[in-house]
Amino acid sequence: MREREEENIIIPESHPRAKSLKYRELLVHGYNEGVVATAGLIAHGRGEAFDYLLGEKTHDFAREAMEAAVALFLVSKHPVFSVNGNVAALVAKEYVELAKKVNAKLEVNLFYRTKRRERAIERVLLAAGAGEVLGVDEKYRAELPEIEHLRRYVDKRGILIADTVFVPLEDGDRTMALRKMGKNVVTIDLNPLSRTAQWANITIVDNIVRAVPGMIRIVEKMRNKPKEELLEILKNYDNNDILRRAFEKIKENIEEWASKGLIIEEVKKYPKFNLKFL
Amino acid sequence: MREREEENIIIPESHPRAKSLKYRELLVHGYNEGVVATAGLIAHGRGEAFDYLLGEKTHDFAREAMEAAVALFLVSKHPVFSVNGNVAALVAKEYVELAKKVNAKLEVNLFYRTKRRERAIERVLLAAGAGEVLGVDEKYRAELPEIEHLRRYVDKRGILIADTVFVPLEDGDRTMALRKMGKNVVTIDLNPLSRTAQWANITIVDNIVRAVPGMIRIVEKMRNKPKEELLEILKNYDNNDILRRAFEKIKENIEEWASKGLIIEEVKKYPKFNLKFL
Repeated sequence: MREREEENIIIPESHPRAKSLKYRELLVHGYNEGVVATAGLIAHGRGEAFDYLLGEKTHDFAREAMEAAVALFLVSKHPVFSVNGNVAALVAKEYVELAKKVNAKLEVNLFYRTKRRERAIERVLLAAGAGEVLGVDEKYRAELPEIEHLRRYVDKRGILIADTVFVPLEDGDRTMALRKMGKNVVTIDLNPLSRTAQWANITIVDNIVRAVPGMIRIVEKMRNKPKEELLEILKNYDNNDILRRAFEKIKENIEEWASKGLIIEEVKKYPKFNLKFL
Repeated sequence: MREREEENIIIPESHPRAKSLKYRELLVHGYNEGVVATAGLIAHGRGEAFDYLLGEKTHDFAREAMEAAVALFLVSKHPVFSVNGNVAALVAKEYVELAKKVNAKLEVNLFYRTKRRERAIERVLLAAGAGEVLGVDEKYRAELPEIEHLRRYVDKRGILIADTVFVPLEDGDRTMALRKMGKNVVTIDLNPLSRTAQWANITIVDNIVRAVPGMIRIVEKMRNKPKEELLEILKNYDNNDILRRAFEKIKENIEEWASKGLIIEEVKKYPKFNLKFL
């Protein structure tokens, strides 16, 4: 009810944050469909802040990480793409397409795991063209070590035996556990400070709505390259450097704002205070 | 249902983000009570990101803005404190206390206005000790110029005739409209880039859960000062400089991270990739 009202508010194209508000609408829609968790809405807000600091565009460090990620998926024997509520709400179609192109399995993998949300996400993936969706059938349930209760479950046919896992918008504890298990971990995370960004082997610091379509284009260019060339890309890849450059870009943007303070010039036209009433 | 489950997850004191997760719980609770809007959850996430960049503490530029804000409230003839869902969920008790101490009226003032949420917030304020709550009775409804539909309503006894309005966690369009009307606008906003932070006369760049209790302590120290001294504080106050210093602090923190890239040392112990499977 209250959600419905909010969804009916039309966002004018002229709004300074029109694109960002469109993605937000997708997320609120996903929330109302039972796909997105409450915490997923808050996490999205954190992402919005970092996307703003990055100028809301894909930078060279993200593109490099995307290329390394695609190379890694293509050389992996058993890549698995993890899906949570926010991923399903924002890029289900493109994510399923990318998984198909690199022969990866799809696995529903939730931080706040409920049967209802698992099923809702499975429906979204099937509607987006997925063949098989792992992580929903309890018969194949296995557990990650060192992770508490509901968050530790994975699929025996999926993440448990994967050599490479793609965990965009993931929780830090789980990313760390996967890395420590010896998996190759690829993530998309707008916050280079997050434990997920820090623990992944490859961190794409970008908005998932830009990164996944970008990766589809990269697969097209890379799929026929010899394995040696793909391995060369991985050999030259340095995630530490990628994270450093992401921080550097944010710093550059802030430096410009810090030199001004008041960025909106028009504000200066108004008196500092209106104390006429005294 | 799904919200209930999430609320039952216990956050260990040892968690690196325990405090931030406690505030998040307050917000999710407010959401389940119909006090907080869906967009309020996302906005909270943006705030979390900026609070993290600020080191999750109150800096000197915030303290200076808090002092100027208290001075302004004390010299104002008709100060009004605006309340939205997030304010009510996070600091209802302290906010009501501060309003009483500076003789300000309280007015419910929602971006996503519904009768149900207005009433829910009114209940929270009354339970927190508020005497009168404006903004709920349609009989006293007036309109702000240049603001679309539901967002433009204010109370004839409150914001419409106020000389000074306190609009923490406010929307940019409304802050701008209030400033252009000649009101003195005070806000709390963790994001120095936001249009609210930019358009306010006084911008407290801090977390509301730290700022409002801090302001209560400042009133105690200031309430007996002569009016001349309070006006001197306002004369010397420069919001442009405050915003500049907030950006500067974020820049300093990012500089440190940018010099490292990988901040979590332990990650370096693990191999760059695990390509044994090849």
